[in-house]
Amino acid sequence: MERNQNGSMYLKTLGLDPENQEAPIAFVESEKRMDGLFYRRNHFPYPEVDSDLLDIGGLTERNLRLTVAELKELPARTVTVVLKCAGNKRSLFSKKTFGEQWGKGALSLGTWTGVPLRSLLEKAGLKDGVQEIVFNGHDEGMQPGFDKTECYGRSLPLEKAIHPDTIVAYAYNGERIPECHGAPLRLIVPGWYAMASVKWLRTIQASADHFEGPFQTDDYVYYPHEDSDEDAEPVRQLRVNSTIQQPLDMAKAEKGEQIVKGIAWTGIGHIEKVEVSVDSGCTWEAAELEDGETEGVDYGWVPWSFKWHAEKAGIYKIFSRAKDSEGRVQPGEACWNRKGYGYNAIDRVKLKVLK
Amino acid sequence: MERNQNGSMYLKTLGLDPENQEAPIAFVESEKRMDGLFYRRNHFPYPEVDSDLLDIGGLTERNLRLTVAELKELPARTVTVVLKCAGNKRSLFSKKTFGEQWGKGALSLGTWTGVPLRSLLEKAGLKDGVQEIVFNGHDEGMQPGFDKTECYGRSLPLEKAIHPDTIVAYAYNGERIPECHGAPLRLIVPGWYAMASVKWLRTIQASADHFEGPFQTDDYVYYPHEDSDEDAEPVRQLRVNSTIQQPLDMAKAEKGEQIVKGIAWTGIGHIEKVEVSVDSGCTWEAAELEDGETEGVDYGWVPWSFKWHAEKAGIYKIFSRAKDSEGRVQPGEACWNRKGYGYNAIDRVKLKVLK
Repeated sequence: MERNQNGSMYLKTLGLDPENQEAPIAFVESEKRMDGLFYRRNHFPYPEVDSDLLDIGGLTERNLRLTVAELKELPARTVTVVLKCAGNKRSLFSKKTFGEQWGKGALSLGTWTGVPLRSLLEKAGLKDGVQEIVFNGHDEGMQPGFDKTECYGRSLPLEKAIHPDTIVAYAYNGERIPECHGAPLRLIVPGWYAMASVKWLRTIQASADHFEGPFQTDDYVYYPHEDSDEDAEPVRQLRVNSTIQQPLDMAKAEKGEQIVKGIAWTGIGHIEKVEVSVDSGCTWEAAELEDGETEGVDYGWVPWSFKWHAEKAGIYKIFSRAKDSEGRVQPGEACWNRKGYGYNAIDRVKLKVLK
Repeated sequence: MERNQNGSMYLKTLGLDPENQEAPIAFVESEKRMDGLFYRRNHFPYPEVDSDLLDIGGLTERNLRLTVAELKELPARTVTVVLKCAGNKRSLFSKKTFGEQWGKGALSLGTWTGVPLRSLLEKAGLKDGVQEIVFNGHDEGMQPGFDKTECYGRSLPLEKAIHPDTIVAYAYNGERIPECHGAPLRLIVPGWYAMASVKWLRTIQASADHFEGPFQTDDYVYYPHEDSDEDAEPVRQLRVNSTIQQPLDMAKAEKGEQIVKGIAWTGIGHIEKVEVSVDSGCTWEAAELEDGETEGVDYGWVPWSFKWHAEKAGIYKIFSRAKDSEGRVQPGEACWNRKGYGYNAIDRVKLKVLK
């Protein structure tokens, strides 16, 4: 029986082959973890992973082959992280771009436990000249535009790879990672768009070269021009961003007290302030951050809310704008790029207050 | 474990209080029924229905009180019907309208079994002067803009009420109706938008007057003007319509053979033709209808497909346009109305064919 008094939430299907599903982000209670509602973004069919081995090698003193059980014996680190598709909100660009038309739900919050990558690299011993660490997943296949089968592969610059919060995770919210989210092992790269957090992690290779796989040099690149690849920049840190969860866009309400609530997050430092406008951005007021003002680095999201009083009937354009501790602020218009990555314009909904 | 090789489909959440969920219509295999993926459209919280009684009265010779078991003993009729929210595709109006922002999935196909309403009205005996039959459901509540609690109520003109295909259904796809879709009894009004197919049916009243409940005279009315109620028309029969299921909007593909597929339906007669354009509507070709050309009345939807060859890389604007046996054709632009009902413009997707 599918009836329930409070309603039930589901993922929104954007594609099935491979599976791409969006979280019902407007309805996710901020304090809850998102088990079963974590967004799914795949380039290939789900792999059959029948091995729990991780191979580490390349430009290292020695090759390592570790089992999940062996990884669990090493000192662990736990991080709570927003993972977010670089294409989140792609459908909001006023000049449309091709690819999955993600709405606002290609992001999720989760707590991941694993071994700092840094300690695995120390075990293997990096040789001189290592510039990047390359990660390959078990997932592979052909995409439109590919000329051969590729596995999903990405690299990190050494500096990010050895950051103590970059981990090889074996647990999500205290349990085995769900198969669709990368079991048995997933790289977790806090603060970066989630293309970096390679699922079904199979190999880690130290390299003196720049990795040039298609998910590094073709996809996940900001191309600011329609017809040339000039001025291309790699997609890396999360831009500062916020999403209004309530009211829903184009909702109707009675006059009187209104609540605007949502979430905000960033890839560098922490969220310092969220401001809300109920008059199309003419005036702004500070929203209340649920956790107060955070300090240092926060890879999670911050729930926020704002109360106001709608005295008059009419149409209200409600905006939210987050600012992080690096001074980065959401822009009025998102920076258009050919593949539709990194949308972070001020979030906007319309509300009709009835007579 | 939520992993599966072919992906899994879910409803898309538009609201939880009350529950409004859209079917993943692009992924519904035409030949399958939609158990579990039937769209949900509610005005109120789900009612607790602890009675299986149906009361029939008003301007009748006698009052009837029937149990579901008694209804099942009467001659039955089975109809396969597209039920479709009048607000389906509301989000596609270029001038946005308030309310749930339905995409293309607020419609579903199902087979319903029940007793023709006509035979119940004959049993009760209609008195002279009956103009409408009024239906009330068990669901009730307050909406923004209401000044009191209302139950969901609608009427039908006598002619539609006594049509032999208008039934009081007790079964959906051969089973008890799911609670969220109206158990134990749902009125099914084939060919009309689904606001007429009252769920959790509680009472049927014959009336000499025009029913003026809010879901009859305020909602479910086409208001063609922004600031006046002039020229208002009630929402009734389904307009002729089609939806492209594949390719997905803004998808990318390799050069070569392409398949466009979708569904088409209408509220009067049957679908006679579906045409597809792959050049922004400059030229059109007939799609293949899965069931061949139907005859008479078809309340279901017709799957269709169209093969073509993309020789050149580029962006293709793919359109579909259905025509029914009444000569009605989908228009280039949907008829805007203040509440956003009845969108049926030519369906459009864009496809990028890669170099």
